[in-house]
Amino acid sequence: MKRITLLCLLVSGISFGQNNEQRLRQIYDSALTQSKCYGWLEHLSNKIGPRLSASANAEKAVRYMQSEMEKSGCFDKVYLQEVMVPQWVRGEKETAYLIDNKQKTIVPICALGNSVATSKNGLQAEVIEVHTIAELETLGTEKLKGKIVFFNRPMDPVNIDTFTSYGGCVDQRGKGAREAAKFGAVGVIVRSMNLRLDDFPHAGNMGYGDLPRDQWIPAAAISTNGADLLSKTLRKNPKLQFYFKQSCYKGDDVLSYNVIGEITGSAHPEKIMVVGGHLDSWDLADGSHDDGAGVTQSMEVANIFKNIGYKPKNTIRVVLFMNEENGGRGGDKYNEMAQLNNENHIFALESDCGGFSPRGFTFEGNDANFAMVQGYAKLFEPYLVHIFRRGHTGSDIEPLKSANMLKAGLRPDTQRYFDYHHAANDTFDAINKRELELGAASMAALLYLVDQTGIQN
Amino acid sequence: MKRITLLCLLVSGISFGQNNEQRLRQIYDSALTQSKCYGWLEHLSNKIGPRLSASANAEKAVRYMQSEMEKSGCFDKVYLQEVMVPQWVRGEKETAYLIDNKQKTIVPICALGNSVATSKNGLQAEVIEVHTIAELETLGTEKLKGKIVFFNRPMDPVNIDTFTSYGGCVDQRGKGAREAAKFGAVGVIVRSMNLRLDDFPHAGNMGYGDLPRDQWIPAAAISTNGADLLSKTLRKNPKLQFYFKQSCYKGDDVLSYNVIGEITGSAHPEKIMVVGGHLDSWDLADGSHDDGAGVTQSMEVANIFKNIGYKPKNTIRVVLFMNEENGGRGGDKYNEMAQLNNENHIFALESDCGGFSPRGFTFEGNDANFAMVQGYAKLFEPYLVHIFRRGHTGSDIEPLKSANMLKAGLRPDTQRYFDYHHAANDTFDAINKRELELGAASMAALLYLVDQTGIQN
Repeated sequence: MKRITLLCLLVSGISFGQNNEQRLRQIYDSALTQSKCYGWLEHLSNKIGPRLSASANAEKAVRYMQSEMEKSGCFDKVYLQEVMVPQWVRGEKETAYLIDNKQKTIVPICALGNSVATSKNGLQAEVIEVHTIAELETLGTEKLKGKIVFFNRPMDPVNIDTFTSYGGCVDQRGKGAREAAKFGAVGVIVRSMNLRLDDFPHAGNMGYGDLPRDQWIPAAAISTNGADLLSKTLRKNPKLQFYFKQSCYKGDDVLSYNVIGEITGSAHPEKIMVVGGHLDSWDLADGSHDDGAGVTQSMEVANIFKNIGYKPKNTIRVVLFMNEENGGRGGDKYNEMAQLNNENHIFALESDCGGFSPRGFTFEGNDANFAMVQGYAKLFEPYLVHIFRRGHTGSDIEPLKSANMLKAGLRPDTQRYFDYHHAANDTFDAINKRELELGAASMAALLYLVDQTGIQN
Repeated sequence: MKRITLLCLLVSGISFGQNNEQRLRQIYDSALTQSKCYGWLEHLSNKIGPRLSASANAEKAVRYMQSEMEKSGCFDKVYLQEVMVPQWVRGEKETAYLIDNKQKTIVPICALGNSVATSKNGLQAEVIEVHTIAELETLGTEKLKGKIVFFNRPMDPVNIDTFTSYGGCVDQRGKGAREAAKFGAVGVIVRSMNLRLDDFPHAGNMGYGDLPRDQWIPAAAISTNGADLLSKTLRKNPKLQFYFKQSCYKGDDVLSYNVIGEITGSAHPEKIMVVGGHLDSWDLADGSHDDGAGVTQSMEVANIFKNIGYKPKNTIRVVLFMNEENGGRGGDKYNEMAQLNNENHIFALESDCGGFSPRGFTFEGNDANFAMVQGYAKLFEPYLVHIFRRGHTGSDIEPLKSANMLKAGLRPDTQRYFDYHHAANDTFDAINKRELELGAASMAALLYLVDQTGIQN
């Protein structure tokens, strides 16, 4: 009896394993031969374009994605989830130059998201270069008052994961202005978060925290070449002046939407698995990598399941979040509604690191679930997906809370990501179709496996 | 006594392991902060350009690399190794169009390397589409005589390693013409070896084998979009005519060189380790990926060793091979001289798969040596280098024979490689500096480890 049980277990184990292997092969084959993600992304990028929250393009993107979800035949239900989003408008293209004695040299800048404008005539002042926020304290009001603070700490090139280098720099962009303002600085220029030397200023959000409104100072990003030039010129002439003009402003909040497509679970309809990315982008480019890729890959997951005839046991929601870039309101709203409706989310997977060759996943969850997903690693080896480690998974799924929930983030190759991130070159031509598809396949494979095994309590 | 020995072994094992870990970190840090490979490649690609064997640019590339090796201070000895290379010249840009009833539609083609020209007025004939060489036999002389044979088997998109798909198609290019000629075909058009749909014809070599000279027929590659158009139009009109004109020719062999830089081994100067790529490229573009990347990465290995102060135990030769693309004479000559001089080569490493993010290595060698290098895998994990498998390593090191020798090939991510391979878009802007540097670091790390441990007999 015991032997027979063991044999049954063994046989069912093998067949389960083989079945998984076959399913993964089907998933990758489907992605590489029948995918729609590249076409969706082409439309989103080239026909719609930049889609900052509250813009007309963001609205167009919502309608397009909703309509594609409905047409796809992948979903049992497609709906919009209302969310009020902040409105920040860049206004006229920014101008900036250094004035070294009487010579003006134009440099490429862009206002940081949420920044205030300069006065209409622009802002001109001496510049003081710093590398850390801590340095402000050392310099004090005496040295900083009336100056433009130039944050010039570059991304550290030695990290293999470029997101680590981003994490090590982005405080300059996020809170550089509010900290400099406390010492009487009149403006802030931040080196773009870019590992390359080029002429693209990289946008991104900043905040004034609880600084009184009358102390808010304008903040802009400068291209890495511009930053090097400014730094070099400053060393020769510490009295040089910097001029910049930006006319960005905030409007009233606007009604927008998360776009949601749902496949009802065949066995556990009450258990929900989310797969998503964010539909908004910065305003300087299409946001093909950030995060048109994640949005269309998430849609592709549903398309793959349809193509291979896989009916998930648990309910799957493809969620295209609004407003990741400058507010995170879509993620917050999704969680708020999940709590309100007492929903049971078991799994959430986000793709928001670009449409490059998939290298693996990061996970957040309890030890049992992390051990479970590490057990999948072998199945992914034929697809050159090797990273299974703990780490931040995604901004949009970050607010989502549910007991024992497992979260995952797709980790594509990161070497090229910050060449494009928030800059004018994050366009469709920077996307490779196969890399995008392989990312979608990896997401579908992980979702399939978690759907099969469920999560551990 | 036994315990003490064990302890000593354990301690020395740990310190050896730690030392290796530290060395790898130094190697990657050096590559990511002090490398010269990107600058060398910029010159090779943008200042010299396409460098087909026997061309003036190939000669310039030899002189430039020799001079850079000498200036680098990395080598004990820099020298040229004479090799006679074949001369094939494309001549005037090719022309091709389909004639569907009376409508002419131009399509992008390029003559295949080693092909003969058409007559001066070009060649016009009916087209017959096939997918395999075996199909020719089935069709026979009756259906093929007087026709242009159109080989249209696409690269298989489902392979994760795109070189597998290349291997599954390239017979059409290599021997399609000589096989079709046997059945009286008058010309051959081959679908480009490219997984994307675009307008670039991809060059590459072909051969006539032992077919008598008077039976040689012209062969050209057509872009993937062109191939799809031709196929679609053929289905509607099987009687359509295809016209193409190419004026390529062969000249006399020319004296050229392998460029070699040598670091004399501190402990075993008679044991030689080769690291290299090929200096020649096709004539349609800079060959930045194929194989400017491999050439400059191989030079970078020596630069890294200099920067971190590592003196190899064994002799290291950086070998920049000539004529990989249309003859392989450089690799043959290198082996010929190695045999003549009774040299003892213990290791050879080639980079000829593009300058993309490194994913691992393939190896050729005995079981003991393969087991040894598999033991390194853990050290490479922090650098996201995971592939350690048996497989073809490189065309230039293929002829090299030495007892118990171990060979390795760098395996970068392959998804984008065939977008550029042998086509006019294989240019410097398709190179990412960090990806190139990480490849060089991975090569240096492997070379360092093999240098430390030696090979197993």
